[in-house]
Amino acid sequence: MNRMFTKSHFARHIFQHQHKLIQQLLQNQIRLCSGGSQQVKQALRLDEDDINNINIRTVAPPATPFPMTLEHAADVGEQFKYSDLSVRLAAPHQLHPKPDADDLSFGKYFTDHMLRIAYHRRLGGWQKPEITPMENLNLHPAAKVFHYAVELFEGMKAYRGVDGRIRLFRPEMNMARMNVTAHRSGLPTFDGEALIKAMCRLILIDSEWVPHTESSSLYIRPTLIGIEPTLGVASSDSALLYTILSPVGAYFKPGAGGLKLYADPKYTRSWHGGVGDRKVGSNYGPTIHVQKEALKQGCHQVLWLYGDDHELTEVGVMNVFMLYINDNGEKEMLTPPLDGLILPGITRDSIIRLCREWGEFTIKEQKFTMPWIRQLAKKGRLLEMFGAGTAAVVSPIERIAYEGEEIYVPTDAQDSPVYRRLYDTLTGIQYGKIDHPWATVID
Amino acid sequence: MNRMFTKSHFARHIFQHQHKLIQQLLQNQIRLCSGGSQQVKQALRLDEDDINNINIRTVAPPATPFPMTLEHAADVGEQFKYSDLSVRLAAPHQLHPKPDADDLSFGKYFTDHMLRIAYHRRLGGWQKPEITPMENLNLHPAAKVFHYAVELFEGMKAYRGVDGRIRLFRPEMNMARMNVTAHRSGLPTFDGEALIKAMCRLILIDSEWVPHTESSSLYIRPTLIGIEPTLGVASSDSALLYTILSPVGAYFKPGAGGLKLYADPKYTRSWHGGVGDRKVGSNYGPTIHVQKEALKQGCHQVLWLYGDDHELTEVGVMNVFMLYINDNGEKEMLTPPLDGLILPGITRDSIIRLCREWGEFTIKEQKFTMPWIRQLAKKGRLLEMFGAGTAAVVSPIERIAYEGEEIYVPTDAQDSPVYRRLYDTLTGIQYGKIDHPWATVID
Repeated sequence: MNRMFTKSHFARHIFQHQHKLIQQLLQNQIRLCSGGSQQVKQALRLDEDDINNINIRTVAPPATPFPMTLEHAADVGEQFKYSDLSVRLAAPHQLHPKPDADDLSFGKYFTDHMLRIAYHRRLGGWQKPEITPMENLNLHPAAKVFHYAVELFEGMKAYRGVDGRIRLFRPEMNMARMNVTAHRSGLPTFDGEALIKAMCRLILIDSEWVPHTESSSLYIRPTLIGIEPTLGVASSDSALLYTILSPVGAYFKPGAGGLKLYADPKYTRSWHGGVGDRKVGSNYGPTIHVQKEALKQGCHQVLWLYGDDHELTEVGVMNVFMLYINDNGEKEMLTPPLDGLILPGITRDSIIRLCREWGEFTIKEQKFTMPWIRQLAKKGRLLEMFGAGTAAVVSPIERIAYEGEEIYVPTDAQDSPVYRRLYDTLTGIQYGKIDHPWATVID
Repeated sequence: MNRMFTKSHFARHIFQHQHKLIQQLLQNQIRLCSGGSQQVKQALRLDEDDINNINIRTVAPPATPFPMTLEHAADVGEQFKYSDLSVRLAAPHQLHPKPDADDLSFGKYFTDHMLRIAYHRRLGGWQKPEITPMENLNLHPAAKVFHYAVELFEGMKAYRGVDGRIRLFRPEMNMARMNVTAHRSGLPTFDGEALIKAMCRLILIDSEWVPHTESSSLYIRPTLIGIEPTLGVASSDSALLYTILSPVGAYFKPGAGGLKLYADPKYTRSWHGGVGDRKVGSNYGPTIHVQKEALKQGCHQVLWLYGDDHELTEVGVMNVFMLYINDNGEKEMLTPPLDGLILPGITRDSIIRLCREWGEFTIKEQKFTMPWIRQLAKKGRLLEMFGAGTAAVVSPIERIAYEGEEIYVPTDAQDSPVYRRLYDTLTGIQYGKIDHPWATVID
């Protein structure tokens, strides 16, 4: 080891070369030097492992009501159990080299293992969960997922804390949302706690893929797809619930300043009576063309408007927030309400709760429109705007291209802007610098 | 052969047992007795085959403007060519038994072969088309199709005419629509004529799967999916265009009377600024839950409404038509306009053209609403309503459950109703009883 290695150099070295280290570990040649070695050893020595010992701390339910409790429909059948989980580890030659932690783009590299749980109504319901090496899915070309977008997902992250321990952030919220989405999609609901435990096991097996840096994390993608091979537009009697893991850097490149947004009322992301409040694939595919339009116009992301009064709904794939001076001369923060048009974001919910705890300004879930934003900007009463989501955490907005104008938002020009404090608080909790019940240590 | 066999018994016998016949043919033991044997022989003797000899008759462009011409984007790259098509035939043991033609439900059985064409931007664009035995797709679990519904399809049919010859119905219309949909989905566009030729070749290889009866047909499902294995919500640099074939009976069970529809303004199928006029998976998945609601309410299908005035848009997965007596006491037919909310159906376009040719009543592409329908029904001026699409051809509507009422539509109570004449004309063209440029003989 070169003595010029700083702590971060060292962490990067470990991250890049641990596939070799694991191979050597398998041959008992070396002892891993990072905090994760204990879990890797445990994962590899299955016979010594008590598979029920994963520690999921139960956190308090969210204060902001999250309208998402539901019972399993009677016809779902058997639920899967964490205690039935089987593990088939990748052979040493199946382990992938890890990319440089500085070099991670979003969702491009994947870890060595995946979790999969099949559902077949005719076999009684959910089958036994299994962790396998990362491998391709083998599906009939008539599977409903290919034709009718019978598919949904969640976005979560595992964070390597400053203490080296791995944390999740409010995972029970993702499970609640995923189940409500499954119900809306004609797909079977499942035991969210059992899935969290199985995913934790997966993360611990691939724990060396959780980057040793605060600028990165391990993105977790639980996915549920309908795989019944028939072409009728109907519920899928077979489904596959799987989880893949991807080490990710920042979703947006840092240092590039705030986002410039393309706000064209010609495009709509969602509408009343649709599925805009559910995390289904159908909310994403149709946005790709519009996002290309945004890029052509020199913008980073789309600001999604709705209705004749051009109300703001989401920005890119994030919820949107605005801080302004209200008619009483007071600071007030707004975010659109959960009226069916927007995704009930977990970062969104966390921000609302944090701001309420701080009590320094009012925060309201309330509709607001582009013409009004334009007015506020002209009067100097628009302070900050930002997007919020799991992938990007909190992203400041700097400009909005709207009806031929460019509206400047002085988000980054504020003295100690609120968005940055929110970013610091959220990542502080996620990376273990702030002790908070939202962070669940999983090792 | 039992002498009690009628012609239709005989046809059914052939249809059921031709997998055995093909096996025997392969061993040169028998000569096939149906009109399709020549094509099967040709398909099996590849070395004798001139692969450019498939006869696609060019038909006149549609009279009703179909707003769907587009140029390939500059970055699509190489187009695939029909002359590059390779064929790998199923081995005898890979051939599937054919179901009873009376017993076909929609999209449940598939033929022995499929067509597949890969697209990889990094390899220069479209790759060579290939016909292979029907087999599973092997895809990375991060493929965009599983997460963001980067997928689209078409629905077409091959009809076995009364003369034993196989026909397609306006296939160039499907290709035009599929290309426009691909463009909207961030997927590569392609040469529609080359795809038609390759699909014809596929159909000829599996020609014994085209049912020998007028009540059934071979459903053709061209599908285009984005398979790039990265989680960014962006265009897919890799795609797979494939076609599978499924012998199908009537989409709706005949003899059950007209459709009973569930019209609840709480649900919306599509909206302005969205993709309701493109044949993407995203328009179908979200309807499954609502269709279940309709079934719970004792209805067959959903009647999709839009906006505060409850305008009619589609019925189930079909376009909707209404025949009524207008204020001048004249018969008039209406169907919603192509304003972005509805799919530009090929059956829809054909019906409009046929009615214009007949010249017996006015047909207009014009918005109409549920309150108005209710009024017309009360005044005895509502004559017929029906859905129209490739799968169902023309389906009469009998009742609409709307705002607690049940509106009766006397579609089937008319003397020689228009819907039945349209059904007879369209199927007459499709099954070769009426000579018409819309039908393309493909053998």
